[in-house]
Amino acid sequence: MPDLTFASGDRERDIARDLHALTAELPLICPHGHIDPRILADDAPFGDPAQLLVVPDHYVTRMLLSQGIPPGRLGVPARTGEPVETDGRTIWRLLAENWYLFRGTPSRLWLERTFDTVFDVRTPLRPETADDIYDAIAARLAEPSFRPRALFEKFGIEVLATTESPLDDLTQHAKLEADGWKGRVITTFRPDNVVDMEFDGWAHAVARLGEVAGTDTTRFGGYLDALRRRRADFIAAGATSSDHGHPTALTIDLPAADAAAIYERGLAGTASAADRELFRAHMLMEFARMSIDDGLVMQLHPGAVRNHNRWLHDMHGRDTGGDIPQATDYVHGLRPLLDAYGNDPRLRVVLYTLDEDTFSRELAPLAGGYAALYLGAPWWFLDTPDGLRRFREAVTDSAGFYNTAGFVDDTRAFCSIPVRHDIARRVDAAYLAGLVTQGRLPYDEAAETIQDLAYHLPKHIFRLDGEK
Amino acid sequence: MPDLTFASGDRERDIARDLHALTAELPLICPHGHIDPRILADDAPFGDPAQLLVVPDHYVTRMLLSQGIPPGRLGVPARTGEPVETDGRTIWRLLAENWYLFRGTPSRLWLERTFDTVFDVRTPLRPETADDIYDAIAARLAEPSFRPRALFEKFGIEVLATTESPLDDLTQHAKLEADGWKGRVITTFRPDNVVDMEFDGWAHAVARLGEVAGTDTTRFGGYLDALRRRRADFIAAGATSSDHGHPTALTIDLPAADAAAIYERGLAGTASAADRELFRAHMLMEFARMSIDDGLVMQLHPGAVRNHNRWLHDMHGRDTGGDIPQATDYVHGLRPLLDAYGNDPRLRVVLYTLDEDTFSRELAPLAGGYAALYLGAPWWFLDTPDGLRRFREAVTDSAGFYNTAGFVDDTRAFCSIPVRHDIARRVDAAYLAGLVTQGRLPYDEAAETIQDLAYHLPKHIFRLDGEK
Amino acid sequence: MPDLTFASGDRERDIARDLHALTAELPLICPHGHIDPRILADDAPFGDPAQLLVVPDHYVTRMLLSQGIPPGRLGVPARTGEPVETDGRTIWRLLAENWYLFRGTPSRLWLERTFDTVFDVRTPLRPETADDIYDAIAARLAEPSFRPRALFEKFGIEVLATTESPLDDLTQHAKLEADGWKGRVITTFRPDNVVDMEFDGWAHAVARLGEVAGTDTTRFGGYLDALRRRRADFIAAGATSSDHGHPTALTIDLPAADAAAIYERGLAGTASAADRELFRAHMLMEFARMSIDDGLVMQLHPGAVRNHNRWLHDMHGRDTGGDIPQATDYVHGLRPLLDAYGNDPRLRVVLYTLDEDTFSRELAPLAGGYAALYLGAPWWFLDTPDGLRRFREAVTDSAGFYNTAGFVDDTRAFCSIPVRHDIARRVDAAYLAGLVTQGRLPYDEAAETIQDLAYHLPKHIFRLDGEK
Repeated sequence: MPDLTFASGDRERDIARDLHALTAELPLICPHGHIDPRILADDAPFGDPAQLLVVPDHYVTRMLLSQGIPPGRLGVPARTGEPVETDGRTIWRLLAENWYLFRGTPSRLWLERTFDTVFDVRTPLRPETADDIYDAIAARLAEPSFRPRALFEKFGIEVLATTESPLDDLTQHAKLEADGWKGRVITTFRPDNVVDMEFDGWAHAVARLGEVAGTDTTRFGGYLDALRRRRADFIAAGATSSDHGHPTALTIDLPAADAAAIYERGLAGTASAADRELFRAHMLMEFARMSIDDGLVMQLHPGAVRNHNRWLHDMHGRDTGGDIPQATDYVHGLRPLLDAYGNDPRLRVVLYTLDEDTFSRELAPLAGGYAALYLGAPWWFLDTPDGLRRFREAVTDSAGFYNTAGFVDDTRAFCSIPVRHDIARRVDAAYLAGLVTQGRLPYDEAAETIQDLAYHLPKHIFRLDGEK
Repeated sequence: MPDLTFASGDRERDIARDLHALTAELPLICPHGHIDPRILADDAPFGDPAQLLVVPDHYVTRMLLSQGIPPGRLGVPARTGEPVETDGRTIWRLLAENWYLFRGTPSRLWLERTFDTVFDVRTPLRPETADDIYDAIAARLAEPSFRPRALFEKFGIEVLATTESPLDDLTQHAKLEADGWKGRVITTFRPDNVVDMEFDGWAHAVARLGEVAGTDTTRFGGYLDALRRRRADFIAAGATSSDHGHPTALTIDLPAADAAAIYERGLAGTASAADRELFRAHMLMEFARMSIDDGLVMQLHPGAVRNHNRWLHDMHGRDTGGDIPQATDYVHGLRPLLDAYGNDPRLRVVLYTLDEDTFSRELAPLAGGYAALYLGAPWWFLDTPDGLRRFREAVTDSAGFYNTAGFVDDTRAFCSIPVRHDIARRVDAAYLAGLVTQGRLPYDEAAETIQDLAYHLPKHIFRLDGEK
Repeated sequence: MPDLTFASGDRERDIARDLHALTAELPLICPHGHIDPRILADDAPFGDPAQLLVVPDHYVTRMLLSQGIPPGRLGVPARTGEPVETDGRTIWRLLAENWYLFRGTPSRLWLERTFDTVFDVRTPLRPETADDIYDAIAARLAEPSFRPRALFEKFGIEVLATTESPLDDLTQHAKLEADGWKGRVITTFRPDNVVDMEFDGWAHAVARLGEVAGTDTTRFGGYLDALRRRRADFIAAGATSSDHGHPTALTIDLPAADAAAIYERGLAGTASAADRELFRAHMLMEFARMSIDDGLVMQLHPGAVRNHNRWLHDMHGRDTGGDIPQATDYVHGLRPLLDAYGNDPRLRVVLYTLDEDTFSRELAPLAGGYAALYLGAPWWFLDTPDGLRRFREAVTDSAGFYNTAGFVDDTRAFCSIPVRHDIARRVDAAYLAGLVTQGRLPYDEAAETIQDLAYHLPKHIFRLDGEK
């Protein structure tokens, strides 16, 4: 489908097609995502089509929930112990019956293109074709060439970053390192569960952090030491970035004694909501300082109200589609961090958002005015053909292309990785084609730019090229 | 004008035209609006063209006010008793002289298309053609085929919902029911004037509510009973939905004693601004519970600052063009209601907005994640070709098409009903044509979708198909 | 480049081209900007190409800073006394080496079009062409036809407003008036440095204001008198408008005694942050009253967080690229002013914004509903082809064209003036062409509209036509 996502103005479409073709042979750089490293460490065959493509995809299960189909019928595990559907074919048929709900959505696009480009299935999904498609995909999954490592290579992935907590022992990465496979799979340092006191079991996690790192985390100083040590371990396992998922973008540089006092109230179970917000904000300053020291690129993902759908959280746990975005203030929130380090060339902060209203008002002026800031790809609800287009239209004026950090797939769905990258490349090609046809950029510079966006920029900004 | 509102990319335009043609024979479903039911109950001839098309249209009179033409010169009644223009032809000429002010606006589009498709007038409106057009429309209005019921049938309206206060005795609907006309005209339960203590005469209205319903509204329990009884009466008069116009989207479930205490302070005239907001927020919870019991679909219209233009309100009263939108927080505001009933399949809440900044950030993720939520059509200042397009572009990613409740004309202007529906259908056709030309949706599914959006979805979601 | 910024749908593009051509001979109306009047009063040759086109352009220097190139290397004067680059050719080469950073940005468009249309340079800027282009521009700048007044005439500027503080003695304007040159250069009354207590040296400035105006500014009454007198002086020097750059859009009408008390706390150095905000808000009411008396059009530029980049401010001072927009509330902020004067035909307020999220939600409904309000052109970060387009798409529905005040270049870059106006005219032509091809506006009315937007409207709204 050569014109997928390209509009039909003939000249503009032709240029978009040519620009997109320039990215065809470029490897995939995947500096942020949520693939379980065990998949690649074990290299076992994937499960059935439903377990692979439906059950873990909260984009899919939330849409079905929104039309009254409970996640249990789709096989989403219940933490209440209630039985859920386990038959892959039954789940698949339920998806097929409700496939019309996904018209116009990115889930539909990703899945259809995955069927086509990964599994060679071009039959349209419908109730009456559900079984055939299920069988075809199941048959492919049984083949050795559809094992995870084979697909990794077929997809042209040059580097894939997974995301681990500081409590993770990184054995999967050690196993990958040890067994001689040439695929580059690195980790990312994501400390939210030992930073955000609103996580269930935060105090317990902090205690475990001390054990893992060999420091005394009953004191704030020992806690910071533990984090520094774990960062060093993560760097040894290939990490080039950290990641921070906070409700807001607030940063603050508390006096050390104040930060320590809040930490102690947290351990004592007496921290207030304000304490917790201040502690998260302060820790972003600490992590910025650590990044300046150890070189980890700092990713900031603010603005999700976690577990907004309480019933869903109670029934099925975190990360099952119940989070909702909220308005996010970067201009005042980040100011303390920027006052301290915004112009420091040693620091790289990649900002993401769920609030597109900040694209032109806040994010582009910030990234286009501070040396330390880069804009991450449109995130989650915005990682769509139209969201990606609106991002370029809104941020290029003030941030240009070279303050944007390239595409990240940010996915749990391994088989969707090439499709997602391809769509991002297509949207950028279409946007650049618009500049070319409007006389705002010559073709040769557009050609260089599309290749930078697809490959060179993310590799450089995420320090995957070995440079500091 | 076959290409009205279609862009000119040839292939995309042709597909849009084909998709739009599929809606040509579909009846109009009008589940929310402000037509006075007396118009249809009496079926008297309409007044002169200005009284029909200019005087009551606050889109028109506010634009002229913004250029210094006071509403009194356009015949808008003054509650101060000051004389206003009464000559239709004079008002019409004033409109024609200032017609250039409406270039690019939806008012221009609606009126021109109404002239053309309803009144067969294709002469462009200009100062020098004003009299001819006035005479032509006046002549049509004198014909029996331009009586309200004849137009209702000609317009292809399958069902039209009006909007009444719980204090309304519904005699117009009774008259319509009694006289055997086959047109389906139903009511909608809109309790704002007995809920919002900021309405002039709230306490008086509450007292009348008790009289109408036969309960003791000096007590909160009696007040709730009265509302329940009136809902039953409205349902008997065909109502399938309630409607709630609040300044914000706040909901809260107060302990019964607290709600009762605020209610009593309201009656005593001692309620604070915070009390009034909490009472509105609590009543949304009560109405959600009532909806679960009696099946009324719950429409929520938050975000208008009523009577922002104080002079206009003092001079000409409510609903004359002086309201202004404000930023609206759905994510936190609706959370208490969603915690309680968001996944309850018995509840249907249709959310509208004046704040398009919430389209992708809040509304689409909410509607795409909760079983009870649907998105209403772009409202008021956003009910325009560009507003409708931006709505689809921003919400389809996370909500798809089937969490949107179809078009509502929401109008006081009876003759504009077919034009408004037609424009919404055209915009959806153009959006779907874009998906088709971009390879994101096959034509046959786009064809099914346009018919669902235009007819089947609103009929189903507003429970106009007899299903619960 | 006839199709610059026009999209390539053939029919739409052709109509856009025709509409744009209608503006070719129209003079430029420049009612708001930051050209130093000394440039035209002295009419001395411009400096070298870098001093003219790079050093003072904070759009350019902030983008380079965002990629780690400090402003000192670009010749931006340091207030710390640190040496900065002074060699124009070195600065120019640095720009050329980093020219790729500006792909897709308005800076690139403005500079390239300036090279072409002002300096006849069509060689693409690259490291290897940097010297040639530098030499070519330098050679032009040495010619008499490239003196400021000659360019002013060549550009077709009918009137140019500069911006001065009430402390300015207006000698440059007096010199221009005295020497018989026919170019119309007027001033604008911008009192921020004597209104906003957060300006360095506010109390000192207020004392100087008293000296300049001959009143006693130790008292609030004398301060208001001084402002009135200076406005009269500015009007005598041609001013038709005032300009107010506030952090927020807050207005408030304080009792005179309260305003005076805050003023005195300000002089005593004891004003709080809340005092300062209230004082700014109150002064907008005072200025509205003065405008009703003396006829100055009131421009309001709210929403910039000044000196957000603290290092940049400490190092290089104000207006060097360190300001960042913030969310702005017009609906509640302006309400006191609108309650008092919003429908007063003697008042004209032109509203600007850095927060495009308010376009459809707040600004268009306000301007389309109050006689005193007009919408200024998209400002600063939004003064771009895409920003200008989104402005029309978002505000035309509720405000039409005739509540918008036309383009203002708002620039410090004299040579970019014709390019900026041309781009705004092109974007309006393209937007109108879309309305024509969609059947929403006949060509003849689009043709009248484009000329009104380009010339007649700003001339009228800013009272540059001699009418009150």
